[in-house]
Amino acid sequence: MNNSELNSRVIARGKEFFSTISGEKPSLFNKGAWMGKVMDWSMKNETFKIQMFRFVDVFPSLTNGRLLTDHIREYFGEEKDMPPVLSTGAKVAGMLGSFGGAVLNKVLTTNIQEMARQFIVGENTKEAIKNMERLRKDGFAFVVDVLGEATLSEAEADLYMNTYLELLDSLKMEQGDWKPLGQGGSSNLDWGHAPKVNVAVKPTALFCLANPQDFEGSVVAILDRVRLITEKVIDLNGFLCIDMESYRHKDIILEVYRRLKLEFPNYPHLGIVLQAYLTDTDQDLADLLDWAKQKKVQISIRLVKGAYWDYETVKAKQNDWKIPVWTIKAESDAAYERQARMILENSAICHFAAASHNIRTISAVMEIAHELNVPDERYEFQVLYGMAEPVRKGILKVAGRIRLYCPYGNMVPGMGYLVRRLLENTANESFLRQSFAEDAQIEKLLENPVLTVERERAARSKKPEEKGPGGLKPFNNEAMVDFTRADHRAEFPKQIAEVRKQLGRTYPLFIGGKELKTSDTIPSVNPANPSEVVGIICQAGTKEVGDAIAAAKAAFPAWRDTSPADRAQYLLKAAAAARKRIFELSAWQVLEIGKQWDQAYGDVTEAIDFLEYYAREMIKMGQPRRIGNAPGELNHYLYDPKGVAAVIAPWNFPFAIGLGMASAALVAGNCVVFKPSGLTSVIGWHMVEIFREAGLPAGVFNYTPGRGSVMGDFLVDSPDVSLIAFTGSMEIGLRIIERAAKVYPGQANVKKIVCEMGGKNAIIIDDDSDLDEAVPHVLYSAFGFQGQKCSACSRVIVLDAVYDRFVDRLVAMAQATKVGPSEDPANYMGAVADDKAMKTIVEYANIGKKEGQLLYESKVPAGGGYFVPMTIIGNIKPEHRIAQEEIFGPVLAIMRAKDFDQAIEWANSTKFALTGGVFSRSPEHLQQARREFRVGNLYLNRNNTGALVGRQPFGGSRMSGVGTKAGGPDYLLHFMDPRVITENTMRRGFAPVEEDDDWVS
Amino acid sequence: MNNSELNSRVIARGKEFFSTISGEKPSLFNKGAWMGKVMDWSMKNETFKIQMFRFVDVFPSLTNGRLLTDHIREYFGEEKDMPPVLSTGAKVAGMLGSFGGAVLNKVLTTNIQEMARQFIVGENTKEAIKNMERLRKDGFAFVVDVLGEATLSEAEADLYMNTYLELLDSLKMEQGDWKPLGQGGSSNLDWGHAPKVNVAVKPTALFCLANPQDFEGSVVAILDRVRLITEKVIDLNGFLCIDMESYRHKDIILEVYRRLKLEFPNYPHLGIVLQAYLTDTDQDLADLLDWAKQKKVQISIRLVKGAYWDYETVKAKQNDWKIPVWTIKAESDAAYERQARMILENSAICHFAAASHNIRTISAVMEIAHELNVPDERYEFQVLYGMAEPVRKGILKVAGRIRLYCPYGNMVPGMGYLVRRLLENTANESFLRQSFAEDAQIEKLLENPVLTVERERAARSKKPEEKGPGGLKPFNNEAMVDFTRADHRAEFPKQIAEVRKQLGRTYPLFIGGKELKTSDTIPSVNPANPSEVVGIICQAGTKEVGDAIAAAKAAFPAWRDTSPADRAQYLLKAAAAARKRIFELSAWQVLEIGKQWDQAYGDVTEAIDFLEYYAREMIKMGQPRRIGNAPGELNHYLYDPKGVAAVIAPWNFPFAIGLGMASAALVAGNCVVFKPSGLTSVIGWHMVEIFREAGLPAGVFNYTPGRGSVMGDFLVDSPDVSLIAFTGSMEIGLRIIERAAKVYPGQANVKKIVCEMGGKNAIIIDDDSDLDEAVPHVLYSAFGFQGQKCSACSRVIVLDAVYDRFVDRLVAMAQATKVGPSEDPANYMGAVADDKAMKTIVEYANIGKKEGQLLYESKVPAGGGYFVPMTIIGNIKPEHRIAQEEIFGPVLAIMRAKDFDQAIEWANSTKFALTGGVFSRSPEHLQQARREFRVGNLYLNRNNTGALVGRQPFGGSRMSGVGTKAGGPDYLLHFMDPRVITENTMRRGFAPVEEDDDWVS
Repeated sequence: MNNSELNSRVIARGKEFFSTISGEKPSLFNKGAWMGKVMDWSMKNETFKIQMFRFVDVFPSLTNGRLLTDHIREYFGEEKDMPPVLSTGAKVAGMLGSFGGAVLNKVLTTNIQEMARQFIVGENTKEAIKNMERLRKDGFAFVVDVLGEATLSEAEADLYMNTYLELLDSLKMEQGDWKPLGQGGSSNLDWGHAPKVNVAVKPTALFCLANPQDFEGSVVAILDRVRLITEKVIDLNGFLCIDMESYRHKDIILEVYRRLKLEFPNYPHLGIVLQAYLTDTDQDLADLLDWAKQKKVQISIRLVKGAYWDYETVKAKQNDWKIPVWTIKAESDAAYERQARMILENSAICHFAAASHNIRTISAVMEIAHELNVPDERYEFQVLYGMAEPVRKGILKVAGRIRLYCPYGNMVPGMGYLVRRLLENTANESFLRQSFAEDAQIEKLLENPVLTVERERAARSKKPEEKGPGGLKPFNNEAMVDFTRADHRAEFPKQIAEVRKQLGRTYPLFIGGKELKTSDTIPSVNPANPSEVVGIICQAGTKEVGDAIAAAKAAFPAWRDTSPADRAQYLLKAAAAARKRIFELSAWQVLEIGKQWDQAYGDVTEAIDFLEYYAREMIKMGQPRRIGNAPGELNHYLYDPKGVAAVIAPWNFPFAIGLGMASAALVAGNCVVFKPSGLTSVIGWHMVEIFREAGLPAGVFNYTPGRGSVMGDFLVDSPDVSLIAFTGSMEIGLRIIERAAKVYPGQANVKKIVCEMGGKNAIIIDDDSDLDEAVPHVLYSAFGFQGQKCSACSRVIVLDAVYDRFVDRLVAMAQATKVGPSEDPANYMGAVADDKAMKTIVEYANIGKKEGQLLYESKVPAGGGYFVPMTIIGNIKPEHRIAQEEIFGPVLAIMRAKDFDQAIEWANSTKFALTGGVFSRSPEHLQQARREFRVGNLYLNRNNTGALVGRQPFGGSRMSGVGTKAGGPDYLLHFMDPRVITENTMRRGFAPVEEDDDWVS
Repeated sequence: MNNSELNSRVIARGKEFFSTISGEKPSLFNKGAWMGKVMDWSMKNETFKIQMFRFVDVFPSLTNGRLLTDHIREYFGEEKDMPPVLSTGAKVAGMLGSFGGAVLNKVLTTNIQEMARQFIVGENTKEAIKNMERLRKDGFAFVVDVLGEATLSEAEADLYMNTYLELLDSLKMEQGDWKPLGQGGSSNLDWGHAPKVNVAVKPTALFCLANPQDFEGSVVAILDRVRLITEKVIDLNGFLCIDMESYRHKDIILEVYRRLKLEFPNYPHLGIVLQAYLTDTDQDLADLLDWAKQKKVQISIRLVKGAYWDYETVKAKQNDWKIPVWTIKAESDAAYERQARMILENSAICHFAAASHNIRTISAVMEIAHELNVPDERYEFQVLYGMAEPVRKGILKVAGRIRLYCPYGNMVPGMGYLVRRLLENTANESFLRQSFAEDAQIEKLLENPVLTVERERAARSKKPEEKGPGGLKPFNNEAMVDFTRADHRAEFPKQIAEVRKQLGRTYPLFIGGKELKTSDTIPSVNPANPSEVVGIICQAGTKEVGDAIAAAKAAFPAWRDTSPADRAQYLLKAAAAARKRIFELSAWQVLEIGKQWDQAYGDVTEAIDFLEYYAREMIKMGQPRRIGNAPGELNHYLYDPKGVAAVIAPWNFPFAIGLGMASAALVAGNCVVFKPSGLTSVIGWHMVEIFREAGLPAGVFNYTPGRGSVMGDFLVDSPDVSLIAFTGSMEIGLRIIERAAKVYPGQANVKKIVCEMGGKNAIIIDDDSDLDEAVPHVLYSAFGFQGQKCSACSRVIVLDAVYDRFVDRLVAMAQATKVGPSEDPANYMGAVADDKAMKTIVEYANIGKKEGQLLYESKVPAGGGYFVPMTIIGNIKPEHRIAQEEIFGPVLAIMRAKDFDQAIEWANSTKFALTGGVFSRSPEHLQQARREFRVGNLYLNRNNTGALVGRQPFGGSRMSGVGTKAGGPDYLLHFMDPRVITENTMRRGFAPVEEDDDWVS
């Protein structure tokens, strides 16, 4: 049969389908009911939709009347175009106080619960089974799924698994009483071929640390629990389907499925889900079918369109990854039909569950199966419980068999599921919305998606490429490492091995374009194994620093007079040089300072970002700006560099921060004397390498590692230094500020100090916060890179109402993590910087244990590495030392606040003001935090580390810094002095009308 | 006769006029000749026109072959669309070196000189008379005018006057031989009624300091010289016309004419020029006619359109004055006809010279005169020599009489005249251009200008009003004082008298919104008369300063939380309060610190500008800015204030700089402790008054005058101060910087220092510079307000080639000035700040006399005021102390540089980098200065003081400051710390697509 003939049949079948359900509407779109009204308003009003869906999300956390009333007011009180049912209610809530509020609360609570019950088959196993049995009586089979909160610990994973095991026990008992569906002959199977019990399981709920960075560890851990479930399914002769979730875990889940299948090669009823909206799926499907043929196993595939389209798109854009989903809706539809055909063509080895509410898609599957003569028992149809009732009725009528996907469980996870369903139904491109809420033309609904794709691709006319400064591409953050990619995963072990071959080399100074060795050297070691020497570092004394300053001073005039655009080119070349070596440069960081893979890679991408961002900023700022608009005069505002810059870098972001400060100074036209930290001088040397590759003129960048005690003051005091950029501890920062303020004879400039110092950063956990999000983000913020970030969270201020629940989940999740060498991706936390750091951190941990209550202290590996335990201490008060002093290590203080005001007050109560975080779903509390939580970088509902250049310019005030923002629009201003040039353009009474702005030759 | 009938006759006459000259072209538009080509290209190519006219302007200064060759290359070498004759020439100049250059030089020199000769009747008296006699033979009468350079000294004024006296002597001898023109009957007069000798004189050339600020002094000085000329004119029975120049001197000239007329009430042949393009002229004319009737004198008026339209428009816009000229060309034409009628209606008492090349205008005058039956002898026609030959021929034919305006003199002033004529002929709206170069339709050329005006007004559709930040009017500098206005002139004596009544009051401190008197007081005195006590100032000690800091700290949270837009409103209200009292506040400055009227007023307008500018800047910056464009996250970049700001103000711009620093601090959200200079504490108190009137909350602005030695360090050291804004000497600035860098226990912030210090500012005089401009600008830059500005010029670096000429003219101009109390506008320079300043300045003058050659030292008035002489010292070398150290008084060092490179090198050779100036007409030298003359504010071809807010943001680097720019776009950044707020907007996989940016409630 040719395509066109098949398509005609599909359309004919679709029309017939529509005609059989003519006039029916899914209950969701019934405007008579509260839920239908909400859906209707959501489709009409984007603001309401956002507020409503967010309210549904937070709803289960609103565990008392006050919380509920407040949130209703906050979410809906201000909204002018509100559906009458809500706006009246909201007004009542505002005006009548607690009594009116109570009434509204009850109405809303009832309605939202009812809305949830639309999609959720029950709150517990018993209720679920009862309702599924009722469905069976109406002729519907089921696949049951247990809703779960995000799994954050081993205990939660066990709980999830045990729920399944108990469910299966119950079903085993019950199924005997069920009459098989359909005309199944004599067997005890539905329709003669299908197990009556069919369960779906979310594999990431079975392991809290599932993460592609630790691919093998994740597969094994999931498999360990899914195996137990599988055994029970087999025991009752049921069907088990491994659900697919976000793209991040796709390859892990595929691997889990393959291994599981090989453990039970002869059991046919083990399936997996594939998502047609992923661009990978054509290949994944082909691979899976090949694999099954090769292994001679029977598989089963449920094909869905995919439910995380927004999420996948946003995440990919945020990380500058290839978008993993099709960006045109019809592309997914077309892929579905293509893949359905591929599965049906392999029906001999692959059972097919076609899950869709789209009548075109369903019709296509029916017609392809018909064309290929696929027996009924090799394919079935599935739809979601609570959705598209006319469709399920139609399928039952036509195909004689249909299965409903039935989630059950309690409200908290239920709301996430509910929001996904609401989104699905209200999306502009939703088939259901178009079919049942908007009465789109049936012809259009049934159009061959291949044609739709062609039309839409043509309609998306090519936008002209956006141009940034100097005609460059606009700034975009360097892509994050993508561990969903096997090549990225493979690079780390490979590059670490390569780097290891190069350990122990001696590194010279670099002054005036020449390498210089000194007799005084210090080794730089691997903190996880201090006997492993990473490099031998020549040390600069005052003589060498003096030479470097002189070299910088000599190079200054020519560099200053190099045009800003040309200076920017050197940065872009340096960025290209770093990009080429990105995995290798990351590997050095794993070994020299103990960064985890992703942390090391992130440091290098940040360094590249600084180069790319400052290059563009300087091109912009290098263009003199015309100011004032009086005729007869031309005023130009422009910037000059300051002279020689001393750049003193820290060890914790050894490449990014050092290169950020240095590149800002350089591109602004200053010459740099760079002092790396003694702990990361090999990484410091990489800056020499990339600048050399970029062709930077001699003397513009000078590299002088050395002992601070020997040459630090000398560098700071030099009258030839005009600018000092420093990132490090408060103590040293303040010392530099004080010393540098003295002007010596012959000194050209008052020294400018760009200074980033410490932090004592707090995250506030509000009583309505989403703990599924808050717990892992806090853990990461506190213990990523061993808490050795000035941005790291070192205090969590938890509102009393959620304190216990939060602490329990946080500690449980911490317990699941491992401490060990960072080169092994299974370790969540590695060694700290050096023995001094180790000692200080342990001392603070001991102070904390006395001040508060030790909640968790991890084990550490033996063997001489600089390991300290992950430590969590509760019941800390603001006056405690570990609530005030920067520890710079993995010691987290937890404080119990009576309310949000107190939490904010405590958060602001230290001498630092660097980063802060708030997890809250209260619009008013988020507003209050914006106003009152006064830190350099405030993060709402996310982790508070990992500031990105251009998106989260970084730096704080008070004792955290002098108000500079690295990677931000004002940063380069600190490295330059503005000048104004005014020309009187009137001569002999003659002033050009339109003065030419192009004055710089 | 009604209007329409008259208009028909005018048009008919005009057509007849055109027909009689049909086919003829003025020689200027003859494209066969070099000049015609230049005109043609100028009309086609604006860039060429600018370059060409500027080249003509500089041409007389190009006194050797190298200079000429260089300038030809610089002006025309790069221009792509150049008329072939020039571009070929320029290429030759570039490629063939000196030989080809010499050829081109000769060609160009010949051509430009020929172009000048087109308009100028001769280079000297003898040649001029010979040529005018030749014109008489062709039937043309003349009015002769002596071209003069700008008169910069008494000697130059005498020279100009003497040229007239000699000219008149020669004419007296010659005129007897001239046959009267026309059918004049038996008299020895032309046409029977007109003196054969007719001279025009430019009154401002007769007094170098003519200035409406000193109205009476200017009138008297001009009259003294014009009287001598008049006597000689009367002696030979000639005609004298007082020419009108720029609007600035119009009322002075009118007054000169009236007084002159009353001195010679019976001599009929004394005339004055009125300019129809001035909107004042209708009234001026009516007043003059009334005056003549009242005084019963015969007057004569030459009515012209006006030749400085561009200049008047630009100047008015630059100073925010009402534009004094009609802005639609036809409005001037209509005014001309209206005013011609008024004059002709009064022909009995007023003789009329109708000066125009416009055939419509000429025809109108003819027809109005005809209608009114005005006898021929009561009106005549004038045109300019060298222009519009067909028109003059036509008039001669029709009216039988015409007079040519004949300037003569040498090249330098001739070029200015030439440029005006070229502009006039090439302007788009030029009647001559339209008639003869563009062959516009005769109907259009002859249209009644009243109709043209109506049409053009309608066509200029109302532009929508431009909006600035917060919906305010965009920032515009406060209008300068306008001494052409009698009311402005009258206000100063009046307000000084008012202020004088209030002298001697006691001024309290102002802390936390309350006035506080202390027993410790210091008088503030009038420096011109120290026995005059301006006010008794209560002095703050450390106790009071401590209280003020505490009050500021207490007020801070509420002030910080006041929205930026609301804070800005207080500044706008303060600006309004200052504006109401602008003359009174200026008067206080005249008495308390010895500012001249304009300088005092300028200080208050600058203060208002700061308030208006920072208010708008803060409204802009107060709006959190969204940065980054990743979906699923919102990043906002915003600014927070720092806390308590200590503002330490200088005495030299006591209101502007103090208020500027304080208002920046305030509007950014900081609270201020303000310490005025002890010398200007009464003016400091005015800030209290205007902030009180603005309703600023208590404690936000605190006023604590006091002895620096007692409380300065205390204020600077306070741990509660987060920000210090200081303007003053380098010594105190560096002391503050050093002390403030120490962080004390309990201190919240590292102190931010905004610090403006001294300068040692140079102006370079290039060998091609326009000395007419350079000399007065240097004098003003060096000696305005006694040189007590950090921006003041204290070094002039003059290129060897022009050194002697420049110095001669500068010294001569200085000699014309007077030193005395600033309240008398006749004094160019007043008293210096106090006895200490007096002593230092005199010491430096003595050092200078030893180091170099004293060129000028003025007298000073006796009587105990703090007067020092205006001192000019030549032959200073870079190593001399007065070439390196800031004197802050009226001592000017002059240095002779061998070339421009050396001049730049010397200019940059001090430790300061504040302001600088260059007078040059070499495009390459101006470019070089932009690149290499590294000062905060560089001024090309103008004075280097008087930076305006928003147009010339002010401040320098090196030891002049820390790179801040008051009144500029980056200034407020120094008073705030940036914050970034990042919200993860994705919840449950749901991210709003278009996030609402309006997040601040």
